[in-house]
Amino acid sequence: MRTLVLTIEYDGTEFLGWQLQPEGRTVQGVLEEAMRTILQSDLRATAAGRTDAGVHATGQVVHFRTDSDMGVERLKKGLNGVLPPDVRVLEATQAPDDFHARFSAVGRRYVYRIIRRPSAMRRHLAWYVAYPLDVDAMRRACNPLAGRHDFTSFCQATSTADGTVCEVRELEWIEVDDELHLRIEANRFLHHMVRTIVGTAVDIGRGRWPESVMAEMLAARDRRAAGANAPARGLCLESVRYPSEFGI
Amino acid sequence: MRTLVLTIEYDGTEFLGWQLQPEGRTVQGVLEEAMRTILQSDLRATAAGRTDAGVHATGQVVHFRTDSDMGVERLKKGLNGVLPPDVRVLEATQAPDDFHARFSAVGRRYVYRIIRRPSAMRRHLAWYVAYPLDVDAMRRACNPLAGRHDFTSFCQATSTADGTVCEVRELEWIEVDDELHLRIEANRFLHHMVRTIVGTAVDIGRGRWPESVMAEMLAARDRRAAGANAPARGLCLESVRYPSEFGI
Repeated sequence: MRTLVLTIEYDGTEFLGWQLQPEGRTVQGVLEEAMRTILQSDLRATAAGRTDAGVHATGQVVHFRTDSDMGVERLKKGLNGVLPPDVRVLEATQAPDDFHARFSAVGRRYVYRIIRRPSAMRRHLAWYVAYPLDVDAMRRACNPLAGRHDFTSFCQATSTADGTVCEVRELEWIEVDDELHLRIEANRFLHHMVRTIVGTAVDIGRGRWPESVMAEMLAARDRRAAGANAPARGLCLESVRYPSEFGI
Repeated sequence: MRTLVLTIEYDGTEFLGWQLQPEGRTVQGVLEEAMRTILQSDLRATAAGRTDAGVHATGQVVHFRTDSDMGVERLKKGLNGVLPPDVRVLEATQAPDDFHARFSAVGRRYVYRIIRRPSAMRRHLAWYVAYPLDVDAMRRACNPLAGRHDFTSFCQATSTADGTVCEVRELEWIEVDDELHLRIEANRFLHHMVRTIVGTAVDIGRGRWPESVMAEMLAARDRRAAGANAPARGLCLESVRYPSEFGI
């Protein structure tokens, strides 16, 4: 039995998210179907993070276990030959048997893209915010989120079974050409956490709420305290980090 | 009668190109339909460059003449309210009556995007070239194209009614993150000219042809001398330049 690991990219626009569902197109669904075609067996793919409908990934990591002795380059080419064009395998490698895409991960990095003028080309890849934004106020408001905190206020209430404490190691708002990006890395993320942070920060940036509200929300530990979710289309899982011994 | 000018962006993926056709979805078709809704009259939109199916624009310029006294900001908002999301009006202005989007233009700038690894997110916006490319050889091969030349060899034969001499003012291959871009500006372009230059340059970059072939093709003045067209999806009309007196 080998443990194989895929790094994949997908455009989330036409998916109901990562996770397999009884009906509807999901990334897991089309990937497992491609694996069935190429490896001639029913295998279960496990992802580092279960992205929602409309959320993209340029560095999602997936593992599965198989008896096949197919070489990793041939596997990658074979999968890309049968996958739809909105999912691509970027890398395929073999990992130690105790590797698990989700439980072995020690860090995830997301980017959230905001555009401040309408764009046809980027309509699925970014959130267009029509209001002027005070980016410095958004930066100051987000500073208290860095570090280890209980993020209950930034989490959809149904998904707190594994606890609500996350360690945010990096959080920065950067301007890239005419885009505004939130780059955020943490050991883990709660459901909707990035989108809730972005939605709240934008409400602060456009002056609806004072800067202090972000820290107050964090302290409240109550989902009802937070702002609206930013739309899924601006969010992208960029990379997943593992302890170096796994060689991923 | 006023002359109104729109700068528009579109994702060419789901269009049969700019130009109105008896059947099928075109940018001109959806724009004129939006104008009909907002201005309540049948107007003809004229573009600076008639892009082909699959070709994008981030700075296409369009003019039309109308009796309406609607303010340009209201026009822009109105059009964006009824246009499909793959076409956006970026700017609307009034121009002198002798302005013509196509005939007044003195320069057009295109970018052609090549990616060298498969990408789901950019599948409609760039050409994925799987072969290693010698970018310096591509640069050297393209140098002779700069300046004023007869570009017959880089033109689809059916469209030479207006002559085949173009002045290429800028032509550079630049590496932008993991992408390779051709940026090219000329007073005018012939049909398929950029895509033929790119297709030929890539054939040189991957070693199928010697560097000298580009200059030989230019001298041949024969469409049969050129390489294959690069795919439409990598091409984007970035901007159109007009004499400053038009204020566009």
